[in-house]
Amino acid sequence: MRLKMRRAVITVLGGCFLLVTLFLSGSKWSSCTDVNRLDNNFYRDGAPHPDGSKLTRLSTQAVDLTKNSIPYEELDCVINGEYTVGCRREGDDVYLPFSFISKYFEVYGKLVQNGDDTRFEWSHSYSHVYVPDGTYSPTGIFMSFEHYNVEKRDRVKCISAIEGVPISTQWGAHGYYYPIQIAQYGLSHFSKFLTEKPRSSIVIEDAEDDRAADQWAVVGQRGTVSSVIDRHRNTHVIEFDTSDSIHNPGIVHQLENIIFGFLFFDIRFENNGSVTVAMEMKGRPNRLFYLHYICSENVLAVSEDNVYYGIGLRRTWGRVTRDLMVDAQKGIMMQLGKKFRGSRLVPLRVISVSVRGHGWIDNITFASSAHLEQMYDAADWFVRHQDNKGGWPIMVTRKLALGRLELPPGWYSAMAQGQAISLLVRAYDRTKIRAYLDCALRATKIYNIPSSEGGVRAMFADKYPWYEEYPTVPSSFVLNGFIYSLIGLYDLKTVAPPEEARDTESLYSTGISSLKALLPLFDTGSGSVYDLRHFTLAMSPNLARWDYHTTHINQLLLLSTIEDDPVFEAVANRWIGYMKGKRAAHN
Amino acid sequence: MRLKMRRAVITVLGGCFLLVTLFLSGSKWSSCTDVNRLDNNFYRDGAPHPDGSKLTRLSTQAVDLTKNSIPYEELDCVINGEYTVGCRREGDDVYLPFSFISKYFEVYGKLVQNGDDTRFEWSHSYSHVYVPDGTYSPTGIFMSFEHYNVEKRDRVKCISAIEGVPISTQWGAHGYYYPIQIAQYGLSHFSKFLTEKPRSSIVIEDAEDDRAADQWAVVGQRGTVSSVIDRHRNTHVIEFDTSDSIHNPGIVHQLENIIFGFLFFDIRFENNGSVTVAMEMKGRPNRLFYLHYICSENVLAVSEDNVYYGIGLRRTWGRVTRDLMVDAQKGIMMQLGKKFRGSRLVPLRVISVSVRGHGWIDNITFASSAHLEQMYDAADWFVRHQDNKGGWPIMVTRKLALGRLELPPGWYSAMAQGQAISLLVRAYDRTKIRAYLDCALRATKIYNIPSSEGGVRAMFADKYPWYEEYPTVPSSFVLNGFIYSLIGLYDLKTVAPPEEARDTESLYSTGISSLKALLPLFDTGSGSVYDLRHFTLAMSPNLARWDYHTTHINQLLLLSTIEDDPVFEAVANRWIGYMKGKRAAHN
Repeated sequence: MRLKMRRAVITVLGGCFLLVTLFLSGSKWSSCTDVNRLDNNFYRDGAPHPDGSKLTRLSTQAVDLTKNSIPYEELDCVINGEYTVGCRREGDDVYLPFSFISKYFEVYGKLVQNGDDTRFEWSHSYSHVYVPDGTYSPTGIFMSFEHYNVEKRDRVKCISAIEGVPISTQWGAHGYYYPIQIAQYGLSHFSKFLTEKPRSSIVIEDAEDDRAADQWAVVGQRGTVSSVIDRHRNTHVIEFDTSDSIHNPGIVHQLENIIFGFLFFDIRFENNGSVTVAMEMKGRPNRLFYLHYICSENVLAVSEDNVYYGIGLRRTWGRVTRDLMVDAQKGIMMQLGKKFRGSRLVPLRVISVSVRGHGWIDNITFASSAHLEQMYDAADWFVRHQDNKGGWPIMVTRKLALGRLELPPGWYSAMAQGQAISLLVRAYDRTKIRAYLDCALRATKIYNIPSSEGGVRAMFADKYPWYEEYPTVPSSFVLNGFIYSLIGLYDLKTVAPPEEARDTESLYSTGISSLKALLPLFDTGSGSVYDLRHFTLAMSPNLARWDYHTTHINQLLLLSTIEDDPVFEAVANRWIGYMKGKRAAHN
Repeated sequence: MRLKMRRAVITVLGGCFLLVTLFLSGSKWSSCTDVNRLDNNFYRDGAPHPDGSKLTRLSTQAVDLTKNSIPYEELDCVINGEYTVGCRREGDDVYLPFSFISKYFEVYGKLVQNGDDTRFEWSHSYSHVYVPDGTYSPTGIFMSFEHYNVEKRDRVKCISAIEGVPISTQWGAHGYYYPIQIAQYGLSHFSKFLTEKPRSSIVIEDAEDDRAADQWAVVGQRGTVSSVIDRHRNTHVIEFDTSDSIHNPGIVHQLENIIFGFLFFDIRFENNGSVTVAMEMKGRPNRLFYLHYICSENVLAVSEDNVYYGIGLRRTWGRVTRDLMVDAQKGIMMQLGKKFRGSRLVPLRVISVSVRGHGWIDNITFASSAHLEQMYDAADWFVRHQDNKGGWPIMVTRKLALGRLELPPGWYSAMAQGQAISLLVRAYDRTKIRAYLDCALRATKIYNIPSSEGGVRAMFADKYPWYEEYPTVPSSFVLNGFIYSLIGLYDLKTVAPPEEARDTESLYSTGISSLKALLPLFDTGSGSVYDLRHFTLAMSPNLARWDYHTTHINQLLLLSTIEDDPVFEAVANRWIGYMKGKRAAHN
């Protein structure tokens, strides 16, 4: 939203007035954290409204002041002696254009029509505070993550079909596994699972029916298909055997009326092979679009109407869970690049599922969501990829503070450790599988290692320990990442057996003490700072944009439900006031 | 200025429009530190302008938009969903009233007429930065103190005629000697001495003329007057002997055409006695106003048209220096209280000087200023009143942070020590009198004593020493007071012989290191904080109002001329930007 407004304001200053700004958004302010909604608004509403007739009609509704006896005049307003803005004068009052105000103070506004009534809605900020409706639970919804849509973010290249987790391109165009993003993917799907109504699904193949194989048609090159008993799984599965060439139409299961966008299936291949989903896309009814899930370690490739996702070798049974909409969109995005924003290619319905090579498939299911599957995909990634220090090294260079701080690839993040722990604790709580708990316990070790020794522990003024989202030297003291790292510790100390959670408990209480001591340093009296780089680098403070400010508030409100100290709620409430233009008092 | 605007805005919200605000000030924004000018503006222009004709006439000069083809309409603007402000709509642009904007963002504006042209001048802040025009000198002008008028401030009860220094009522209505105020009084007069053109003066009596005594007339009760040689002073003086009763008109020296407002004279009394100055006041030509300087330890008393200033016993020769305008105004203020602001009682000319009792008087001089005399009065006060710790204990209770911090009477202030040193160093530099230098050197001892032990030294996070303006426990870390304390150390280390200034040098370099480390914590990204009470008390930050923000900037600009580190100028320039609405970037 912010970006949009800025662009609009620049146009306004160029001479044309407020039209662009006023029509930017007809919806409520987007969630701070729901970057996808921001993106969608951007490409849906980013252009000036083409239809001026609405305005013309509205004009007749308001009182026409031209009949007023007080003259209404143009007036130059000199801003701080530096430049002039065209204002209006009406008797003794002076009116200033919102086009100027919005840029000068970075506030937001839009004309809103409600029936015959039009009004201008002024907003000091653009993001949303989620006030918790109860005490935070380490096994429940994670903050307000049910509103996140991690995989739809532009900076997510795709969901790897090998790992089942997102691949980020935020700080490296090649794409890399970013544990924070993976944890947020898992936590958001878990939170959606807890908040959304139960999903609908349809199993199109479980091979249990005698005539199961009859649903499959061998198209093109020769092949066989049959229902067999799998000795490892002790259940019926579909065995297929045909050419593994991608040019082979394969063995095809035609579908009708599949309106669910999520697909999962269990699969095993003898050698090479693939599964293809054919879809009809909105806007081009007679042309099919293909998602191919192929035995490959290559994550993603695209060629015209074909998108290829590697699923690894799959020589043993394993489940593949896919969000078809996301898979299609990421493929299209890869092809179109920045032009993707205007693309109307949206999956409409699935036409068929086909298989190639020699392999076995079972439990082919379409569903309206797959939150738990996605959550476990993420949690399992953390179990599989934890290193011997208990961490998930981040293999991309991270630069901060205009390049004055740099983390070479291989750094750990306390926020990644913390959010991974929060996810693992929830996976453990639902499954009681010790691997999740053990993984979470090992993940705390990095909290004790100083940043200068490859860990994440910083010290403020040699006195207050701080777990760093970005363990730069000198330290950066990013607030939101630190609090996420504490929430992870809280989750773990609450769920783990007490005798195993002593270190965790100690790390948490030390961290909370530091937070209480240093929190005031993040308060600017009209907002918050994102970090304390101004202190460590003697530079300009790095103000938190409103969505990060809101994250700070949401985090403090969470802490206020689990910590006795009233300071968290007091600061949160003061910071909520800042979002409505309130300021701390001056002397 | 700020207070004024606020009052105006409240009125505006009450329904009547911008008139009050617009006419509040026709002059340039007042100096941040010149409280007197603010006060004067307040009572001169605090009421709505009674004459609307000016506006009416101006209206004809501007383009009348009622002939414009774009309709101009009323429009409700909903502010953050909380309340509604009446706005205007003109086609696609929305205009907001300054009455709302000025209150919401606390910005300032006024209509300014220049010939036929009227414009609206918008100011983000109200105070003035003084960019130094050269390297700061410990023996030159002190900051921009030539613009200060300490004695005219409302919180100065009067200038004691016993001590020759101001008495403060800021935190105690009874009045007390406040070393910071006394030092600023001395430093401002010294700075005025260096910047103003030479004064004019007239000696009305030096007793050297054979017929000197003839100028005096014995009025009322019997008396004698003669010119005699004084053996202590080895010069002619006027000896007078008459009743010391204040009801005795005394021995009178009639005066004509005395337009100078400063009087000084040397005097000695045998017993009781007084000197009276009779003045004509503006606005009441036929009624005289009397300033009586009487042998008394009572500082100030008032009775109708008589103001009585105690000058102590004066049994030995001493000089009395008086600002007659200030003496009259403080007397009137004492009588009228808050009604003083509207008073038109301004001294116009001196009619006579008269003496009572038995005593000797010499060198009666009227002058256009008395800056050096006032400066030495202040410096001498510090020499006379330094205690055995080297400090000047402040005998009033000081409460900070809504009463959460309290200093009982007897506290020291690093700012008082520092500004006293700056004054003493200048007095020493001009006179080479060791007493001034010794006094300054002794004044540094308190810098080493922790606040908790009755001194002024605080520690930030057990790491950074800080010299406290208000040595509260917990610490308050007031920025401007700390920097003043450093400037005093700088002055002393520069002027004192190196072997005597080692401790001073060390205190200074330690303090500068702390300042460099902690300065970023005072930067809010759109202004500065006055102190760090939010850190020590976990409360809302105490934003610096614009005049303190400007003081911070002026101090940093001073430091930038004597310290190599570019950080001082960089921060000052960023903070200057904040005064014009610039903000630090957000992420």
